[in-house]
Amino acid sequence: MSKVVAVASGGMDSSTLCYFLHDLDALGLVMSVDYGQRHKKELESARIIADHLDVEHVLVDLTAVGKHLSGSALTDDIEVPEGHYAHDNMKVTVVPNRNMILLAVAGGIAVARGMNRVATAVHAGDHFVYPDCREDFTLSCSQTLQLATAGFGDIGIMTPFVDKSKAQIAALGSVLRVPWHETWTCYKGGDVHCGRCATCVERLEAFALAGVDDDQTVYADTEYWETVTNYEGQ
Amino acid sequence: MSKVVAVASGGMDSSTLCYFLHDLDALGLVMSVDYGQRHKKELESARIIADHLDVEHVLVDLTAVGKHLSGSALTDDIEVPEGHYAHDNMKVTVVPNRNMILLAVAGGIAVARGMNRVATAVHAGDHFVYPDCREDFTLSCSQTLQLATAGFGDIGIMTPFVDKSKAQIAALGSVLRVPWHETWTCYKGGDVHCGRCATCVERLEAFALAGVDDDQTVYADTEYWETVTNYEGQ
Repeated sequence: MSKVVAVASGGMDSSTLCYFLHDLDALGLVMSVDYGQRHKKELESARIIADHLDVEHVLVDLTAVGKHLSGSALTDDIEVPEGHYAHDNMKVTVVPNRNMILLAVAGGIAVARGMNRVATAVHAGDHFVYPDCREDFTLSCSQTLQLATAGFGDIGIMTPFVDKSKAQIAALGSVLRVPWHETWTCYKGGDVHCGRCATCVERLEAFALAGVDDDQTVYADTEYWETVTNYEGQ
Repeated sequence: MSKVVAVASGGMDSSTLCYFLHDLDALGLVMSVDYGQRHKKELESARIIADHLDVEHVLVDLTAVGKHLSGSALTDDIEVPEGHYAHDNMKVTVVPNRNMILLAVAGGIAVARGMNRVATAVHAGDHFVYPDCREDFTLSCSQTLQLATAGFGDIGIMTPFVDKSKAQIAALGSVLRVPWHETWTCYKGGDVHCGRCATCVERLEAFALAGVDDDQTVYADTEYWETVTNYEGQ
């Protein structure tokens, strides 16, 4: 039976991934990365999710690496853009080569722990802006990891959500009873979800599209998202 | 003109790589990684080489990652094996997935700095023990990196020494006037090269095979290497 290192940010997608793998009795450990992001609350959310599922949470401190990867609003003092994801305003939130670094580290941890799979929650909605969330990248990365660990675990990467929309993930997570209010999505560093940044807008839109109840999550602004989405209600 | 991030350990191979790229006016910066290895002197050597070539030395602190990658004599309290490289005794010196992690980080730094190539000094002698030094791995890793950075630099990996023996690298470095005594090879943490660990044996053998003068490097044991090598003199 494969045991899986799940890369988890504490957001709704990767939390659903953890519940999905746990449901299959395949979750080995939850790995999160502190790369100097301003939204540290997501790391606490990832720990809570791992605790709920009774698996170890490994927090890898990549802040020393993050400081060499400047140029992103996620780690620097650039203002986080509001509104819906679109190439021009979200390109600023790209941390150079973040996913390849995360997956390479997760692969090393898998070898060290005698596990043989790494899973990431990249999904269809990520592809537009981030090249390192696309399927051709994750497939190539899996082949690279397998070559790198040949004879040392032959680690492969699983991307079960790569073709799923965020709404589909919300629906799956709802079946798996993911505690949504304990996940963290917002890219701003506030006490509650802002409801205005691109990730908050996507989250609210996904729950609405899936018809999923997210009443326990607190948003500073619960109306803005509908002004920047194409969603017209059901 | 391509500018290259050279991954350099301070050893003879990567120091030669730096001199080779500098000779082509392609060296952008020298990147070294502190992953908790016991032989820290190599990091100082890498800095000296970068200084000689008048390029920036970026030292990336991966010690926080290294502590999750246990099981290697390079970072743990396991005794470093002596003698020539061979699968059974050198497997213990493998840091899980080290090269993929290094190359992924180097790719991120290349994007952040507006450079478009990453170079690593993997060579023919590395392949036997380390899967992540083989050409199929580095090629796959380069394709992965290019996909990950599509539209953000399209970074590719160069491995100019992948088919070269260590003796060929010694010969090239000699032409390029690499200051051998300022490079560091030994896997043990002493003040001078031990002359007995597998990397010291390889170094001494390479210089002998290439007929290269390394008289300024001090070795604690200058005779042991000939007892464990097939080299019979010229």
